[in-house]
Amino acid sequence: MNSEKVEIFDTTLRDGEQVPGCKLNTEQKLIIAEKLDELGIDIIEAGFPVSSPGDFHSVSEISKLIKNAKVCGLTRANKKDIEIAAEALQFARRPRIHTGIGTSDSHIKYKFNSTREDIIERAVDAVKYARSFVEDVEFYAEDAGRTDNDFLARICEEVIKAGATVLNIPDTTGYCLPEEYGDKIKYLKENVTGIEKAILSCHCHNDLGLATANSIAGVINGARQIECTINGLGERAGNTALEEVVMILKQHRDLNLYTDVNSKMLNKMSALVSDLMGMPVQPNKAIVGANAFAHSSGIHQDGVIKNRETYEIIDPAEVGVNESSIILTARSGRSALAYRFKHIGFDVTKNELDFLYQEFLKIADIKKEVNNDDLSLMIEKATRKIG
Amino acid sequence: MNSEKVEIFDTTLRDGEQVPGCKLNTEQKLIIAEKLDELGIDIIEAGFPVSSPGDFHSVSEISKLIKNAKVCGLTRANKKDIEIAAEALQFARRPRIHTGIGTSDSHIKYKFNSTREDIIERAVDAVKYARSFVEDVEFYAEDAGRTDNDFLARICEEVIKAGATVLNIPDTTGYCLPEEYGDKIKYLKENVTGIEKAILSCHCHNDLGLATANSIAGVINGARQIECTINGLGERAGNTALEEVVMILKQHRDLNLYTDVNSKMLNKMSALVSDLMGMPVQPNKAIVGANAFAHSSGIHQDGVIKNRETYEIIDPAEVGVNESSIILTARSGRSALAYRFKHIGFDVTKNELDFLYQEFLKIADIKKEVNNDDLSLMIEKATRKIG
Repeated sequence: MNSEKVEIFDTTLRDGEQVPGCKLNTEQKLIIAEKLDELGIDIIEAGFPVSSPGDFHSVSEISKLIKNAKVCGLTRANKKDIEIAAEALQFARRPRIHTGIGTSDSHIKYKFNSTREDIIERAVDAVKYARSFVEDVEFYAEDAGRTDNDFLARICEEVIKAGATVLNIPDTTGYCLPEEYGDKIKYLKENVTGIEKAILSCHCHNDLGLATANSIAGVINGARQIECTINGLGERAGNTALEEVVMILKQHRDLNLYTDVNSKMLNKMSALVSDLMGMPVQPNKAIVGANAFAHSSGIHQDGVIKNRETYEIIDPAEVGVNESSIILTARSGRSALAYRFKHIGFDVTKNELDFLYQEFLKIADIKKEVNNDDLSLMIEKATRKIG
Repeated sequence: MNSEKVEIFDTTLRDGEQVPGCKLNTEQKLIIAEKLDELGIDIIEAGFPVSSPGDFHSVSEISKLIKNAKVCGLTRANKKDIEIAAEALQFARRPRIHTGIGTSDSHIKYKFNSTREDIIERAVDAVKYARSFVEDVEFYAEDAGRTDNDFLARICEEVIKAGATVLNIPDTTGYCLPEEYGDKIKYLKENVTGIEKAILSCHCHNDLGLATANSIAGVINGARQIECTINGLGERAGNTALEEVVMILKQHRDLNLYTDVNSKMLNKMSALVSDLMGMPVQPNKAIVGANAFAHSSGIHQDGVIKNRETYEIIDPAEVGVNESSIILTARSGRSALAYRFKHIGFDVTKNELDFLYQEFLKIADIKKEVNNDDLSLMIEKATRKIG
């Protein structure tokens, strides 16, 4: 079976940037956009042009700058939003307008005080209007996660007829379980007439910690685009983390799916976004956290020293980390200690190691991390005692 | 169908504490252990007694302190480890010894330089020996995620015969996809003779961002214990986040599974562990991140103001957060602005709002977050202009 491509739609500059404290100026956005293009992202969502003059300006400047990726602007389902987005995107080589409306009963009732028929009409009008400006129009069915599948299929069918090229099925509240989200994509794939004319896209939120799993369930069931952000940034608990879905597809080749992302840039990309947005990445963040490739327990260190493949499944170099670090703590075993001694120039015998390990544990019970200076001092003291 | 209980096994003090920089002293461990007991945790893994004198002491003191939860100590599959664990646990009201060995071909070959038959023998001996000290013995099949299901079923069968009460099926490398991990649990549930005598336990690592999804796939397929840590701490990218699995089971009642965890304590518990270990929680961390319930985009804020259920599926009070905060940024809409004006005492008309909103956007394009002082100043200036 031939491997199929999953498009990566990055929304760091739109869904990520709207997070409290994450606002960027145009210059900062241009730096990130250019790196995203270099990273191999297929679509860069650059902003929500109607939302503020600053955002309009940024989308416009990003459109002029980007050479490879499609540049996308968000709108609601109304003429003014779409006109302004089209204007902001006018210099993009490959522009995309991303328009849509809430489709769940909760959104239809409380947000729009409307009816299902009216929502379909507004959706179709918006897509047609967007298509009068650009060829590539993505439709989002907001709160699709809580929209019943029958109605969702109907609205998808209608917007495809109206010219939508991509159908975004967001789990807006982050409530779906992977099986449920996968089934929704499968249902659409099987029940929407004309579905072969559009790409289904996963846009998952992480409120229950399931965004990555839901997106993967989506592509297993036929979606071919994932919307995500660097470091999983985004409203509330954030979006799907780009680095996680990219590495899952890379590691699980049996899924027969691939992306064009250059994984070796992931670590630097994560640091760049974290720095510019002032949003820390926790040390235990998958793929890009400071500890993602660090081993500290004795059992694990021993395994890694014997054969790295015992505990690691990702070669750190694959995501741009130079080596998996082994940190000496009270949980480290004899082999990690011997390995480090060797590394700093001391080849200790088994008996010496037995003695030094007891000394090491005493220091490690007091200090969080035992460093090379501590080890040199230990050797010095031990030599005096033994000598 | 009656709802079934999933036991929560917290390993913050063992798997979490062995992380670089997370070392705690005994006093700090006692503070956390007591709070975990209050939180309603079923089993507290208190440490790895043989690993250092400090760890032995902590397990011993926690054993004396804890009133409700089972207290568990980790061992490898050898007599010395088990004896020392039994000694550390001697004062526990409900002691559990957690022993085990690597079962994947990679571990058998590279870590133990051994054979499958020898591994089964060592496992059985360890379980029997542990049972000579305590009634509750959990067996871990390290790297079960990469162990073939046939051999895994065989070793499970043998350790149940030897007296194991719980079977821990760790995805040690964090490599499994949810469906794969769920299938593994299902396979064991259906193919291990005597499986009704033991509880299957999920122990998942987060290297690919899938620990939570894998654990949930595990309990959907018959596991009845989840091993997890506060804030998802743990080696490398960490373990399953306790707060995530607890809230998923609480929110998805259709799964017919429940835990005894008092979710209202989750937020405080997260802050306590983060403070004592010095491990930051990123703002976009699910359930316990600072932004987990914060709304900033205009579309979302508008929805939340009209009806909170539009965007939130978890009532913040359920996890001990007082209210969902609405933060004013360049992405905020008119309704959020009007809402905040009202909140600080100004009831503005639609025309006034139109004018004030433009002023607001200018400030918001410069400042990351617009606060109440900025708004009061805006009103003051506007009054002067209009007046």
